[in-house]
Amino acid sequence: MRILPVLCLLLSAFVLSPASAADPLPSWNDGAAKTAITEFVAAVADPEHADYVAPSERIAVFDNDGALWVEQPIYTQLAFVLERLKTMAPQHPEWQEQQPFKAALAGDMDSVGDAGMEGLMQLLMATHAGMSTDEFAAVATDWLATARHPRFERPYTELVYQPTLELLDYLRANGFKTFIVSGGGIAFMRPWTERVYGIPPEQVVGSQIALKYSTDLGTPVIMRKPEIAFIDDKAGKPVGIQRHIGRRPIFAWGNSDGDYQMLQWTTAGDGRRLGMLLHHDDAEREYAYDRDSHVGRLDRGLDDAAGKGWVVVSMQRDWGSVFPAAPSQALAHP
Amino acid sequence: MRILPVLCLLLSAFVLSPASAADPLPSWNDGAAKTAITEFVAAVADPEHADYVAPSERIAVFDNDGALWVEQPIYTQLAFVLERLKTMAPQHPEWQEQQPFKAALAGDMDSVGDAGMEGLMQLLMATHAGMSTDEFAAVATDWLATARHPRFERPYTELVYQPTLELLDYLRANGFKTFIVSGGGIAFMRPWTERVYGIPPEQVVGSQIALKYSTDLGTPVIMRKPEIAFIDDKAGKPVGIQRHIGRRPIFAWGNSDGDYQMLQWTTAGDGRRLGMLLHHDDAEREYAYDRDSHVGRLDRGLDDAAGKGWVVVSMQRDWGSVFPAAPSQALAHP
Repeated sequence: MRILPVLCLLLSAFVLSPASAADPLPSWNDGAAKTAITEFVAAVADPEHADYVAPSERIAVFDNDGALWVEQPIYTQLAFVLERLKTMAPQHPEWQEQQPFKAALAGDMDSVGDAGMEGLMQLLMATHAGMSTDEFAAVATDWLATARHPRFERPYTELVYQPTLELLDYLRANGFKTFIVSGGGIAFMRPWTERVYGIPPEQVVGSQIALKYSTDLGTPVIMRKPEIAFIDDKAGKPVGIQRHIGRRPIFAWGNSDGDYQMLQWTTAGDGRRLGMLLHHDDAEREYAYDRDSHVGRLDRGLDDAAGKGWVVVSMQRDWGSVFPAAPSQALAHP
Repeated sequence: MRILPVLCLLLSAFVLSPASAADPLPSWNDGAAKTAITEFVAAVADPEHADYVAPSERIAVFDNDGALWVEQPIYTQLAFVLERLKTMAPQHPEWQEQQPFKAALAGDMDSVGDAGMEGLMQLLMATHAGMSTDEFAAVATDWLATARHPRFERPYTELVYQPTLELLDYLRANGFKTFIVSGGGIAFMRPWTERVYGIPPEQVVGSQIALKYSTDLGTPVIMRKPEIAFIDDKAGKPVGIQRHIGRRPIFAWGNSDGDYQMLQWTTAGDGRRLGMLLHHDDAEREYAYDRDSHVGRLDRGLDDAAGKGWVVVSMQRDWGSVFPAAPSQALAHP
């Protein structure tokens, strides 16, 4: 029973502290975007509010590339692919003439971008199939530990957005379950999303290549086959949500037209909902791009946001900081 | 601050109560099966134990049909299918000659059983595609509310196993995340698994038909297409686990050869693991079937269990009760 007085002391400290008054989103500047978030969360988490939502239905979905971490000048996963392509190229002379391999090996990112998400998937298959799921996770983890972003010269897992880290924490503190719903490869994200975002592998939805269970070599393995199983982009996102989560989110966070249907599906449901689009308009601290970008194009979303009640977040205006200040912060995240 | 003394009182009551000494599995008879569970959980949840497993890696997977609820004389989902087939039959004269439709309409369950899980999927597609996911969930929910099992004359959602309800609670109380990994249709299970098992829709893995996001009618819907997308049975189970959960379970519970690969994949990993097979050997309280059954055949699993260290649970010997005693118990489950 020695522990009881200690627990009560701790409890007193908690109850007495002004924690509830502290700003849960310190990296967000005051303004319409921040207010939209806090008012939404206050409403759906308050049992006395007309817009109350039961905790089990508080599902929040986040795109990853350009929404939770940097996607310029090229998708991080594409940078990963390029290094492997170069390593494998001597064994594949046909790639010198075949797109999008030729462009990728030449570093012609415009042409690779033109090939879209499906082109990216082709490069992914060629470089990432024919090995087990465990082997692939190890390769991805090893690469991320040493790779550096060409402009910021930091590991990619430190080029996550501090304001969205706070948003994820804030939503979870208010009973939300947070999911990633990304066009990127699910197996490329899962090895690090729990450490960096606090999102466990089972709450990551993404594009997938086909898998096959095999005991051919005695020890059971799951092999990665060179075949696209699912592309979790555009109209694929609501399908990925349904397949994986099985209920409709009430909060969606994206940044490109690839997220359009995810926001549409999320916000068209009954009751209170919130859809948000991050607008990359900050060339100084990050990048500025929208309607004409090969990567993360945002065009239709900008046109339709107001009519659909989606909140456009200006990186320049609404965010007080972009990346975590010190490496230790990003790495220490749960 | 009025609340603090009350909290301390509650805390005292909890700390003083003999809850930790209470049997967490009261419907299990003492014996090797029960001991295997409690020793496994005690080891992996104890930070001081050599076999300790971090909470995030405590993934437990459960088959559903015959593992968490009754599957005889026919799969519950098949009973649901049969009623819809009869309703639709006048519009489909071709079914009178076409298997497995002919057998299903004639109530010839042996022939339907011979068509296996793939045959079941055909019947599923014919009866369940061409409507939205919301519509299907409503149809399934309505049917389960009124349907009664032919022998026990209770709703199917009350014919869940009391010992596995306790096992699910016990694992969750010890930091496990519990998943269903079933050959059954994911959309047929999700509307009720949270209420009955405490397993939310996002932790249900199952067979799936193809889905398509559509805004053709103005309001966005997800339509169910007459096309099999994934069969979560046999070697499909480890694949379903990888696709959906993204890490290897440490505990697996099944009852048929359809669960063989799930147990194999689970128990072949490093560190401490536990695979269990429920043996239906209790004709009096439930059913007795194994090697020759059309539904839930258990043959290879019985042969190999001892060699692989899987624990075979005898319903007759190891379970003190089978179903929840009173309807209110099953319905009151979280």
